[in-house]
Amino acid sequence: MSVREILSEWGVGDFRVINKQALSEITLGASILATGGGGDPEIGLLWAYNVVDQGKEILLVDPEAMPDEALATIAGCLGAALVLTEKPPNGQELFWCYDKLRRYMGKPIQAVIPPEAGGVNTPVPMAVAGAVGVPVIDADGMGRAFPELQMTSFYIHGVSPSPTAAADEKGHVTICDANDALLTEHIIRGAAMAYGGISWIAGYPMTGRQLKDTAILRSISMAWELGERVFSARRKHLDPIAEVLNLTGGYRAFQGKIVDINREFGAEKTKGFSLGEILIEGIDTFKGHNAKIGFQNEWLTLEVDGAVRCMPPDLICILDPATGEPIRTDIVRYGYRGTVVLIPAHERMRTEKGIQTFGPRYFGYTHDYVPVEKLMEGKEG
Amino acid sequence: MSVREILSEWGVGDFRVINKQALSEITLGASILATGGGGDPEIGLLWAYNVVDQGKEILLVDPEAMPDEALATIAGCLGAALVLTEKPPNGQELFWCYDKLRRYMGKPIQAVIPPEAGGVNTPVPMAVAGAVGVPVIDADGMGRAFPELQMTSFYIHGVSPSPTAAADEKGHVTICDANDALLTEHIIRGAAMAYGGISWIAGYPMTGRQLKDTAILRSISMAWELGERVFSARRKHLDPIAEVLNLTGGYRAFQGKIVDINREFGAEKTKGFSLGEILIEGIDTFKGHNAKIGFQNEWLTLEVDGAVRCMPPDLICILDPATGEPIRTDIVRYGYRGTVVLIPAHERMRTEKGIQTFGPRYFGYTHDYVPVEKLMEGKEG
Repeated sequence: MSVREILSEWGVGDFRVINKQALSEITLGASILATGGGGDPEIGLLWAYNVVDQGKEILLVDPEAMPDEALATIAGCLGAALVLTEKPPNGQELFWCYDKLRRYMGKPIQAVIPPEAGGVNTPVPMAVAGAVGVPVIDADGMGRAFPELQMTSFYIHGVSPSPTAAADEKGHVTICDANDALLTEHIIRGAAMAYGGISWIAGYPMTGRQLKDTAILRSISMAWELGERVFSARRKHLDPIAEVLNLTGGYRAFQGKIVDINREFGAEKTKGFSLGEILIEGIDTFKGHNAKIGFQNEWLTLEVDGAVRCMPPDLICILDPATGEPIRTDIVRYGYRGTVVLIPAHERMRTEKGIQTFGPRYFGYTHDYVPVEKLMEGKEG
Repeated sequence: MSVREILSEWGVGDFRVINKQALSEITLGASILATGGGGDPEIGLLWAYNVVDQGKEILLVDPEAMPDEALATIAGCLGAALVLTEKPPNGQELFWCYDKLRRYMGKPIQAVIPPEAGGVNTPVPMAVAGAVGVPVIDADGMGRAFPELQMTSFYIHGVSPSPTAAADEKGHVTICDANDALLTEHIIRGAAMAYGGISWIAGYPMTGRQLKDTAILRSISMAWELGERVFSARRKHLDPIAEVLNLTGGYRAFQGKIVDINREFGAEKTKGFSLGEILIEGIDTFKGHNAKIGFQNEWLTLEVDGAVRCMPPDLICILDPATGEPIRTDIVRYGYRGTVVLIPAHERMRTEKGIQTFGPRYFGYTHDYVPVEKLMEGKEG
């Protein structure tokens, strides 16, 4: 069955064709929303370009158009983005996952949903959808990036990550089917580490109904518009940061130069994450002030002059002030200049179970969650 | 399809019916050959008795009777036997495994082969075979017990452990399908640890041809005869150790009292194994001599007065001199008296790849493998 046949079976006439320009815009937008995580967009983009070059169609469909009983799964990668840059995929990993997962479930998978907004995990599921011949649903599971499998709006609203299949570039596949999301995360991450730090995963099977009830809806078209606006600002020599703030309702919380990076190393210690803390010295209107940002694959907490300004799940993005390009946790270097933008998380991410699952205390911080809107009242630079 | 229908399809009229007495004899024999590992026979026996009580037939079939193209898998448990005693199974784990593995492979599984000789992993596969309705093949993968998934005659003669499914008592299932036996062991053991120390596994799919070419053949009937003889010696107040030595061609290498046990604890350190070393002070003809036995789930090495007398894969069994009952690594206590019996490993276990896979150097000992026959020349007590 081709993607057009699936859409015709669904009675869907309305969709957007994702060409290479669209892919680059969506990927830029998603990598801005990825809060420093989500990996190198080059890898995801090349993978997706390649699928378009092969003449496959990538079609983006509104979640409301998906039938309640049709089945979707996520597709993407799980592990340390730092490793990804040195261990590029061969492009077959996710087809193996899909094939094995489909066989294990004994049901057709009719759609792909990106797990998160990220330089890899947004374009790659599009590539997979194009190659497999199913539509991409205009939604994701976070509206940002997060490090662990259970850290999704799907999970906190009742969808299990199991079964999830994890493959490496040699074709090794592990399937975990456990009615316990933390156990599934533990086993799939164990497989990723056994594979050398990264695994490619397909899983979180959900019906159209579940997707509509739990996902961050229309986040792909939002990332697309964000990417379009930033590219346009660059061409017109306008302030790309202003475009980001306008579209997202975010805050310009800090601006400065990175003066220290404390990165933790060693698999025993980091458990497959990029972990650490950076210090930023203020410039321009922030001169004389200091900021500290903690990270675990993604930027997680911001303190300015010792006062907390943002906690997960709210978004912290460090952007190049001239280009709007995100600075990622895996490539951040001493001397980089960046503007720190804070964006309120989607309301579906802010439930009580959401705060338990990916709030500050889950990550080992000692503060209770306070929404960024409250922390930033009267504080914008 | 019932087990009788499978045997009739195979054209097999010759098989042995395993009743409760047979189960107790086979399990005693297997737990003697388990070299201190293999777990608590009570658990395996109760499981198998229960299947017989339900009116299911457990039929033991000679490996030569299995068609070359029929498919068999192992069934059993993997993890620290110490945990097993505190975390008993509910009896459903392996049916879940079988069901998921069959679905994943998309092929019927027509026979069960015990992975090893052990108090759990010999009767439990019989219970599973009875419950699922397939024959048990009279063979196993070691002719003893060993701690890791790749430590089998199957693997060293070219059969892959993948796919292997691992379940816990809550129904969580992990399937690893990797053309790399050490990686499979690593991931399945990771799942066992995530489950709390023990997992129930089905896997190592192999054809009848592969089984005949790689397994330790007729080891179940050998364990059966061993159990029969030891029970008979007990009834007749004869020396059960002499019966073990007669049937196995083994050596009476030491006799004494356990005076020290150094057990290592902590998941980080032991990686899910029962690890340590015991010291034995000689009595009777061994008075004035000392023995040291290293273990990792199983007894692995024996030194007498500092001289190595046995190395893996040759078998070290510590048996109660009065009953022939084996003393296991998970229950050994200060003050136990035991006779140390050494038994040459099956020739299929002694190949170059065998010594690489489970010889002394694999376990971290600094000696090259020397067969026990050579080490014991003129040394028997």
